[in-house]
Amino acid sequence: MRIGVLGTGVVGQTLGRALVAAGQQVMLGSRSRENETAAEWALGVGAGASHGTFADAAAFGEAIFNCTSGMKSIEALEAAGEANLEGKILVDVANPLDFSRGMPPALSICNTDSLGETIQRRFPNTRVVKALNTMNARVMTDPARIPGQHNVFLSGNDADAKARVAGWLSQWLGWPPADILDLGDITSARGAEMLLPVWLRLMLALGTPEFNVHVSRAPATAAAAGPEAGSPGRPT
Amino acid sequence: MRIGVLGTGVVGQTLGRALVAAGQQVMLGSRSRENETAAEWALGVGAGASHGTFADAAAFGEAIFNCTSGMKSIEALEAAGEANLEGKILVDVANPLDFSRGMPPALSICNTDSLGETIQRRFPNTRVVKALNTMNARVMTDPARIPGQHNVFLSGNDADAKARVAGWLSQWLGWPPADILDLGDITSARGAEMLLPVWLRLMLALGTPEFNVHVSRAPATAAAAGPEAGSPGRPT
Repeated sequence: MRIGVLGTGVVGQTLGRALVAAGQQVMLGSRSRENETAAEWALGVGAGASHGTFADAAAFGEAIFNCTSGMKSIEALEAAGEANLEGKILVDVANPLDFSRGMPPALSICNTDSLGETIQRRFPNTRVVKALNTMNARVMTDPARIPGQHNVFLSGNDADAKARVAGWLSQWLGWPPADILDLGDITSARGAEMLLPVWLRLMLALGTPEFNVHVSRAPATAAAAGPEAGSPGRPT
Repeated sequence: MRIGVLGTGVVGQTLGRALVAAGQQVMLGSRSRENETAAEWALGVGAGASHGTFADAAAFGEAIFNCTSGMKSIEALEAAGEANLEGKILVDVANPLDFSRGMPPALSICNTDSLGETIQRRFPNTRVVKALNTMNARVMTDPARIPGQHNVFLSGNDADAKARVAGWLSQWLGWPPADILDLGDITSARGAEMLLPVWLRLMLALGTPEFNVHVSRAPATAAAAGPEAGSPGRPT
């Protein structure tokens, strides 16, 4: 399959390389066709890898991965062009982290909105699926490096698009299907993006970005007492 | 030890009962000394359990657990009285969830602030430790009901207070010390409180509040490539 990966940072490069390794054709998109990082990436990855502008990559891809900085994602997607994104699945890997006021960054959008929703509203004919934004690029593309079970989350309004993205995560990146958790519609991207503040604190506390979260459930019988009582959603 | 538990909801009741079962003396505090829920709770739990106003419970406790609704925590703590909280450890279990606009609730404080920080600023001579706010009350008080390893997070400015709270979680509630993760100073309460949106989505997706998150790490050697590259904190 032909895939446009927008963004030439570590996430775009790592994800693009992994998709080529899985047999897909990947064009890495950036602001300029002369981007040296993208050219070196394509040369280094070899057959199956190419580079171009955001618009080139979006036109090339049957599916698109947004790996741009979250603060600049809308700008990058507008450069990619609405027509080039029309009807396609867009996997949104970005986080709207604002580093302009130093560490730790705050989210530029959160709580009552999310970057995923913002992209879906701006491009209503694109099938946005939030995924992979809650972990390091090496974990995204090689989940087996973290021991035991751990999860990747999906958010999106289009059930078929989420099912296809789940298939790609499984077949191309090695995610066990049982570890792919559907959080709900695109508004649930708020939850996935709001994991970033604790992710950043955990990275500092653990001294490594190579971790991920696993949602561990009680056996069905233990949960039979009911789904609401005493939850943090209802503290009193 | 004498403990004041503020809040007569499911969290306060469940936590209070567990603390009594662990051999502590607990006074459950609420707005009114005539609170029937609190009176019934004390009668049901028996020896070691009592009830009173917020101020009674705060004066009684050598340590305090804030289990009030996050939207009303400051009001409850002001009723408890600054002098009654002075120098004491306050375990803040509350979440600032605003249900007034329906489901899903938004956080009334987040991103660049948190309830934990707000309480610490308002009561500078109280040793605030954010803990236990990221899970259901049954999981807080009986972590073994969730299979495998899973975590409870601590945030606070006072290292000694965090160490003491970690000891209480371990000795009184059954948390294995290795599963207690220190996120950092009280500003890291932002991360713990911002877990609530994904927690609520997971509760809906899984159909139960009986789950918890586990932070799974790569073996030390796999993480040797460095702590920053390709993390969601630095997407490009």
